[in-house]
Amino acid sequence: MKHLLTIQELPIEEIDKILQEAQRLSLENEYDHSSGELVANLFFEPSTRTRFSFEAAERNLGMNVLNVDAASSSMTKGETLYDTMRTLEEIGVKAAVIRHHEDYYFESLVGKISIPIINAGDGCGNHPTQSLLDLLTIQQEFIVTQGLNVVIAGDIRHSRVAASNAEMLQKMGANVYFSGPVEWIPEKHKNQYISMNDACRTADVMMMLRIQHERHCAGMEMDSNDYHKRYGLTIERESMMKPHSIIMHPAPVNRGVELADELVECSRSRIFKQIRNGVFVRMAVLNWSLGKLKEETINGTIA
Amino acid sequence: MKHLLTIQELPIEEIDKILQEAQRLSLENEYDHSSGELVANLFFEPSTRTRFSFEAAERNLGMNVLNVDAASSSMTKGETLYDTMRTLEEIGVKAAVIRHHEDYYFESLVGKISIPIINAGDGCGNHPTQSLLDLLTIQQEFIVTQGLNVVIAGDIRHSRVAASNAEMLQKMGANVYFSGPVEWIPEKHKNQYISMNDACRTADVMMMLRIQHERHCAGMEMDSNDYHKRYGLTIERESMMKPHSIIMHPAPVNRGVELADELVECSRSRIFKQIRNGVFVRMAVLNWSLGKLKEETINGTIA
Amino acid sequence: MKHLLTIQELPIEEIDKILQEAQRLSLENEYDHSSGELVANLFFEPSTRTRFSFEAAERNLGMNVLNVDAASSSMTKGETLYDTMRTLEEIGVKAAVIRHHEDYYFESLVGKISIPIINAGDGCGNHPTQSLLDLLTIQQEFIVTQGLNVVIAGDIRHSRVAASNAEMLQKMGANVYFSGPVEWIPEKHKNQYISMNDACRTADVMMMLRIQHERHCAGMEMDSNDYHKRYGLTIERESMMKPHSIIMHPAPVNRGVELADELVECSRSRIFKQIRNGVFVRMAVLNWSLGKLKEETINGTIA
Repeated sequence: MKHLLTIQELPIEEIDKILQEAQRLSLENEYDHSSGELVANLFFEPSTRTRFSFEAAERNLGMNVLNVDAASSSMTKGETLYDTMRTLEEIGVKAAVIRHHEDYYFESLVGKISIPIINAGDGCGNHPTQSLLDLLTIQQEFIVTQGLNVVIAGDIRHSRVAASNAEMLQKMGANVYFSGPVEWIPEKHKNQYISMNDACRTADVMMMLRIQHERHCAGMEMDSNDYHKRYGLTIERESMMKPHSIIMHPAPVNRGVELADELVECSRSRIFKQIRNGVFVRMAVLNWSLGKLKEETINGTIA
Repeated sequence: MKHLLTIQELPIEEIDKILQEAQRLSLENEYDHSSGELVANLFFEPSTRTRFSFEAAERNLGMNVLNVDAASSSMTKGETLYDTMRTLEEIGVKAAVIRHHEDYYFESLVGKISIPIINAGDGCGNHPTQSLLDLLTIQQEFIVTQGLNVVIAGDIRHSRVAASNAEMLQKMGANVYFSGPVEWIPEKHKNQYISMNDACRTADVMMMLRIQHERHCAGMEMDSNDYHKRYGLTIERESMMKPHSIIMHPAPVNRGVELADELVECSRSRIFKQIRNGVFVRMAVLNWSLGKLKEETINGTIA
Repeated sequence: MKHLLTIQELPIEEIDKILQEAQRLSLENEYDHSSGELVANLFFEPSTRTRFSFEAAERNLGMNVLNVDAASSSMTKGETLYDTMRTLEEIGVKAAVIRHHEDYYFESLVGKISIPIINAGDGCGNHPTQSLLDLLTIQQEFIVTQGLNVVIAGDIRHSRVAASNAEMLQKMGANVYFSGPVEWIPEKHKNQYISMNDACRTADVMMMLRIQHERHCAGMEMDSNDYHKRYGLTIERESMMKPHSIIMHPAPVNRGVELADELVECSRSRIFKQIRNGVFVRMAVLNWSLGKLKEETINGTIA
């Protein structure tokens, strides 16, 4: 049994195992739907998109899904997260996928719970399956991450995944740059700043971020058109990109803001491939958490 | 892959195929639950009744169901219907059942999406599976629709299905009449008006409509009792009906308003049979959309 | 086909059959997930906890689950419970689990509906699966209920199950006492009153109840700490309990109010075992309702 909590604490060899499993699953056409194991999705913050990706993954693996919608749920009211998890464990749940608004909510659970926790996002911090699906998409394209130029552009301060992706990619030998409004770039990344024009000429991978309107405390003093011209990936900027370079985005895209409408499905775009990879990565993570990786099973019987 | 969008554009031979499949399914006791294909139900308007009928159909076919409840969903916020559909497609969804408040919402999708769309109701206009289940119920009773007298009575102006049912039935050779408050009968159908007393004496099929309280803009100047006496199917009127004539209603019935309480389950009533047929028709439509009609498979291997 | 409506009307031999089935299921590790039968959960009052226990039970039995969340459902608006149930029946639902705020809501259905109703709670009255899981937990511990001292302590007046548990346990030969604030003990049970200190010395089973803050009409003139000291199961009181005595609670626990935080998972506590037993009991009830008890099947083929 293994938790997936943050990408930082995940050793590179474990990342490799998960991505190999995801790649293997991406090549299969049919899945065995007979497991019947119970899994619970606990979403204390609404996120239909991530939940459906997990739910598709779970159902592909033949799991039975309990969706605990915390907003409307009486289960979690006046009850600690620990008691909720213990209850689900006794009900027979074999793994829990959790999104929670508190940073590191899982620290109250680790060591006390006997079923794996898969972090589907905590506070502003961690969202490890998003990082893994981004990495899978890059590896499918370039195989080697060593020496790759990756630009993360846009609303870095409010992004769940920018910081952890940057750390992961650097650990794997990529050169990571940041672009977008300077005031949105955290102090410690200021030396990695690059202008959008330079970014487009340099990048092998342009990772555009979604503008998180709802998280901005201070008002942004420009409208969407201004933003697009100054910091967005416009058609003009796309034409400066190197022939093999790709565009990524976690979706949903604000069309015409961070990315020109026409680029969403252009030949460089891997945006919908990322969504597809999300299901494979989540299937792989579930198998990994539950000790069901194909290689492990094989090694297990030999060893 | 075929969409089911409106009953008008569906050729009669396709209607026949779907109804034959529905009839075949109605005679089976056991279904194969092993398909495991993902299907998404997107209900942008609440309609638990139709959704559960689809969900039962989907589960009978062994499909895995993602229920996208748009009211509370973050998935669809600030995102075009096209982007939502493309996302579902990449997640692995094989068919989408959609109810949407906009007329002809599907026009933005057709030709751009590679999975079938099954229209579960748009605006005030189309609701093709309701039309199909009505037709199946009539055919099970009379076999031939040619020359059949069908009266559609009640709140015709606000009914999703009255207009399309009328058109479909006329195309199939039935004589269609309308009854109820004259002011609710659209101009182009005024020449098909018949009084309730004449309707009951003439009809082979009395299709009663539900009064859509919530859609009435102008107040109705009578109470439920008045309405029942003047335009409802009362016990007295039922006694005037021909021996073999049947009563239909899309449900839920306002008991004692459009229909006398005692008639809901009388021997003429096919109301609960319509609900049962709804599941068979929706199973048949899913099979038809996905190219899985039994005959097609057989013809396919021979041809 | 059998309804489960109240524990009072359930003959002791039927209780025995259900509990034997539950015990048998508790010893199995794998279940057959292939039934594919439709079951509907109708919760007119929110109760995620009970619903998930039922849903886990249903999925363990391989059933396909329709969750009718009445709060947000258009299905049940302006429609009698009878019409909703008839609709579900026609849709193909084989059993209905219902929680409803009205006392004895099921009286309008019995004799008119051909599928079993499993009562998951009505008004302030009946919650038979909770009673059955409590009894299973006691029997697993003591085997014989005859002569057992059971103390029900706390918010008896507002508890769904206190009264029916008391009646059931007395019928089975247990000595039942009540403790907690005297003003919360109904008149007819006043002669069974016992102080908390005496209760702890006497009880084989301490059934603590949850304080139902939301149901209290008159304000309680003490805070949680006061309540805990005067009427709660404190660590001091626990030390007075007999060596073999157990602590039960329907959960969720108000930690530090009715029960000391440290006692929730102490060696005497059967609280999480009750939750686990809840799933087995609900599986057993579904099998019993649908005529699928293993012994019945065997007897059926012999007889």
